[in-house]
Amino acid sequence: MDKILRIDMGAKGGPQFKVEALGAYAGLGGRAMTSSVVAQEVPPLCHPLGAENKLVIAPGMLSGTSASMSGRISVGCKSPLTGGIKEANSGGQGAQVLARLGYAAVILEGKPEGDDLYKILINKDGVKIEKDNSLKMLPNYDLVDTLKKIHGDKITCISIGPAGEMKLGAASIAITDIEVRPSRHAGRGGVGAVMGSKRVKVIILDDTGLKNREPKDPEKFRAANKKFVEGLTTHSVTGQALPAYGTNVLTNIINEAGGYPSYNFREGQFAGASKISGETFADIETKRGGSATHPCHRGCVIRCSGTYVDKDGNYLTKQPEYETVWAHGGNCGIDDPDAIAQIDFLDDNIGLDTIEMGATIGVAMQAGLAKFGDAAAAIELVKEVGKGTPLGKILGSGAGVTGKVFGVEKVPVVKNQALPAYDPRAIQGIGVTYATSPMGADHTAGYAIATNILKSGGYVDPLKTEGQVELSRNLQIATTAIDSTGMCLFIAFAVLDQPDTFQALIDLLNAFYGWSLTGDDVTALGKKVLKIERDFNAKAGFTKEQDRLPRFFSTDPVSPHNITFQVKDSELDSVFNW
Amino acid sequence: MDKILRIDMGAKGGPQFKVEALGAYAGLGGRAMTSSVVAQEVPPLCHPLGAENKLVIAPGMLSGTSASMSGRISVGCKSPLTGGIKEANSGGQGAQVLARLGYAAVILEGKPEGDDLYKILINKDGVKIEKDNSLKMLPNYDLVDTLKKIHGDKITCISIGPAGEMKLGAASIAITDIEVRPSRHAGRGGVGAVMGSKRVKVIILDDTGLKNREPKDPEKFRAANKKFVEGLTTHSVTGQALPAYGTNVLTNIINEAGGYPSYNFREGQFAGASKISGETFADIETKRGGSATHPCHRGCVIRCSGTYVDKDGNYLTKQPEYETVWAHGGNCGIDDPDAIAQIDFLDDNIGLDTIEMGATIGVAMQAGLAKFGDAAAAIELVKEVGKGTPLGKILGSGAGVTGKVFGVEKVPVVKNQALPAYDPRAIQGIGVTYATSPMGADHTAGYAIATNILKSGGYVDPLKTEGQVELSRNLQIATTAIDSTGMCLFIAFAVLDQPDTFQALIDLLNAFYGWSLTGDDVTALGKKVLKIERDFNAKAGFTKEQDRLPRFFSTDPVSPHNITFQVKDSELDSVFNW
Repeated sequence: MDKILRIDMGAKGGPQFKVEALGAYAGLGGRAMTSSVVAQEVPPLCHPLGAENKLVIAPGMLSGTSASMSGRISVGCKSPLTGGIKEANSGGQGAQVLARLGYAAVILEGKPEGDDLYKILINKDGVKIEKDNSLKMLPNYDLVDTLKKIHGDKITCISIGPAGEMKLGAASIAITDIEVRPSRHAGRGGVGAVMGSKRVKVIILDDTGLKNREPKDPEKFRAANKKFVEGLTTHSVTGQALPAYGTNVLTNIINEAGGYPSYNFREGQFAGASKISGETFADIETKRGGSATHPCHRGCVIRCSGTYVDKDGNYLTKQPEYETVWAHGGNCGIDDPDAIAQIDFLDDNIGLDTIEMGATIGVAMQAGLAKFGDAAAAIELVKEVGKGTPLGKILGSGAGVTGKVFGVEKVPVVKNQALPAYDPRAIQGIGVTYATSPMGADHTAGYAIATNILKSGGYVDPLKTEGQVELSRNLQIATTAIDSTGMCLFIAFAVLDQPDTFQALIDLLNAFYGWSLTGDDVTALGKKVLKIERDFNAKAGFTKEQDRLPRFFSTDPVSPHNITFQVKDSELDSVFNW
Repeated sequence: MDKILRIDMGAKGGPQFKVEALGAYAGLGGRAMTSSVVAQEVPPLCHPLGAENKLVIAPGMLSGTSASMSGRISVGCKSPLTGGIKEANSGGQGAQVLARLGYAAVILEGKPEGDDLYKILINKDGVKIEKDNSLKMLPNYDLVDTLKKIHGDKITCISIGPAGEMKLGAASIAITDIEVRPSRHAGRGGVGAVMGSKRVKVIILDDTGLKNREPKDPEKFRAANKKFVEGLTTHSVTGQALPAYGTNVLTNIINEAGGYPSYNFREGQFAGASKISGETFADIETKRGGSATHPCHRGCVIRCSGTYVDKDGNYLTKQPEYETVWAHGGNCGIDDPDAIAQIDFLDDNIGLDTIEMGATIGVAMQAGLAKFGDAAAAIELVKEVGKGTPLGKILGSGAGVTGKVFGVEKVPVVKNQALPAYDPRAIQGIGVTYATSPMGADHTAGYAIATNILKSGGYVDPLKTEGQVELSRNLQIATTAIDSTGMCLFIAFAVLDQPDTFQALIDLLNAFYGWSLTGDDVTALGKKVLKIERDFNAKAGFTKEQDRLPRFFSTDPVSPHNITFQVKDSELDSVFNW
């Protein structure tokens, strides 16, 4: 991982690449890499779909090593959805394979004239860029099937579906999983639209003949990893709840807490929650011959995913995540697991962020385009995006645009990005993260649910304002660092609760790179990257007024707690005072 | 004009009104009134379509008097298009009649539950608010015809078409003219959507039985008005060019200057310009039995409008303005006067800002929805808005949203509002106004064309950066003051060039109110209102980064001068340093 692959898609005579040394970017990975490159090289006021924007794909610092959980990949750019800096993070095989191929980053630059579509092949022998218009408008699953026939089944694909080609604000970038299925997505912020604007359909990786990256101190590294894995397997969340039920274990928990936004954030609890809970999904998966426990990348020991099959036992989609189930479920008044699984597949296949799309369907329902609870209508609306009709393009542009086009007042977005599955009125800490993260509304940016609800890393009462700013601040700093390591964010539960596990993570980094980092250095990295991101956003025109929730969270109380979002603006403005 | 009519559309049990004294708003008119009320009473971060926004309709300080040219009305709110403060200004009879009725402002507040539509009647006997769902989705011309049958033909209507009811970002508010035709529009910024969100279809004014407002010093007032009119009739622009050819006299002039944005700002000259020039339109109007010279309100001595009839001599629309002709003409590659006149009518009838719509069709053509130059396709696209199809709602949401939905990079907007008919690369002064006006891209906010091209108020070379900031600054200040008086902005040519005419304007104000204003006081008023507006925008989240032209104006030179926009960011940031 000692080089950067830079591809100029707008070069005269056709796309050209060069392989560079890391230079000033040495030692960076994941979000630290993507945000550094974007901040350094992309003009903050450029058009997100223009030649000046860049798409940066970076494995984490520990990706491609034998460290467990190190398979997260970061995708960065100026976001067409938020207009600010973006890092969208995904599992799948991409990080491990790209890192083994030796690339700390792939940077797509420029923009070709005309309408030709390209595929990029990267393997041990080098890089090839090929025009391939036969791939135009292929959905992700069809695309990958086609590519497997040509390039074999050892490949890993980083691709866009029709949504990315149409440059829609909700377009994701798909990363194939262990079974070479495009089921993992760098979902948020329209990163797929930027890839589409570069006219790159897919990057095909093949690490055949290559080995894991070697640590400076193999022995210490092995020891640290052992301790790290022990910590994960003994913690109740990462050792039991997530393996058994996946992220959707949260449906019952959040619903009970009254923080489950239902009917486009009208209510805080959903009567049909138990019908779409993680327990129910696991039960269906097991009974039908799918699987309730499954890793999304090599080296994962939590295995929070699964395989969802239809009534005949045929693969339908991967186990839908909690936020996906919520977005298309309670948020739309839908309590049918098969319908939600089908939409999850459609989103993945068309190449759409499930959170943005679920929120968008909720806004469309608010506008009267379909009735809350009408699963068949919701499925048709998502299909419409794939067809590229005007209605489909509205919806594919996300909740903000959909609200504007249909004149809807109640649109749950911050920085034009849809709020995920936790009501900030019932769980005030997550509201602080939604409002202030440089990414726009994003639960992963500072997952206050951990401490507000799951009592991980202590406890802060979710219904009170006290302590929420400090909680969100600390989580945003820690998350930014973790997102740079390539580690899955779910390690945070164990890391927050068990000092030994946190130390094991630091030991992994130190043993691999020959560093002598302390916990403070990790915190400093998080702060540094957050500052880079906020500086970019300021130059792109963001000010504290964009660090706010939509007004209805302050004016309309939500059941069952009958509470509004109460953290004051001045408190929100203090999140980044450290 | 000593009272304010405040109507709470969201009152329990149905809309309620109260008539108030002016209080702190005494002495204000037009833009000074609307911007003061909005800044004072509307939360900057509220949703533009929510109950907290207010729609303020205010005649100018001299409206309803016998002063010539005093018939401009201001409509203010938080804009659904820009997200900032908005004053949209219109001719027609509204200002004169509302002022004679004694109202310095009508303020629509709150938001009713449900879907009922209302009409508001204001005459000498008072105010009535009536539910009338029979008016739903009526186009403006049909609406006014219907109302004339009920309320007689002495009425003046302030109304929205289907676009306003659909709460679209390009929705205008129509004001009827002397012939009670809904041909004049407070067009910009989506003010019609705010009226639609309040569920008010139309305000019907009738000043039967009422007289002009009486000046404090009638003799001095008469004398000042005489001098004022003399100044207007002797100046070449207001005395000759505008009466003869209307605003569209500019097509040939701006095209020759290379500042006529053609094919969505791809070129600075249009081969078909002479076919759609003011001279050609006047010729058609005269030959067919229309009229090339016509006032839009009582007391106008410039009479820059006209009547455009079809080949059979039937009324088609009022004489389309230069910006309208450009927007749907050269900007879309269309050189057919009848097609442009038909679209002008459609825009007025559906209730759409012609500038925003023309720019939007240009972006749609850039996206490939129709070919540049295809007039029939352009007409169909505008009709689509009236039908309320998904495609129509996209287009009716303006150029910014259309660009987002169709993934277009080249979208000519500032603060999400479309640029009018002057290329800021060939006429750098207007670029400063587009970039920095608190209204978003708006030529009327500081009409640098006057001095850059028409050599009114001196001369500043349009192709150089020197002097443009000072020019735009002074014009923005003067315009803000003029927009508060109720005077038509076209007086500016005579006022800029002839100190006596400027003095006559001040004398009119002093004689009417018994004041002793000087020129400096007028300037101070302009500065004060601009500051109020910029403060509102800052609280709504605007910063200097929103005071920028789209990036392509700095990167793509335009023919024939082969020049980019060259005014530096730091210069733009100095516009409001006075």
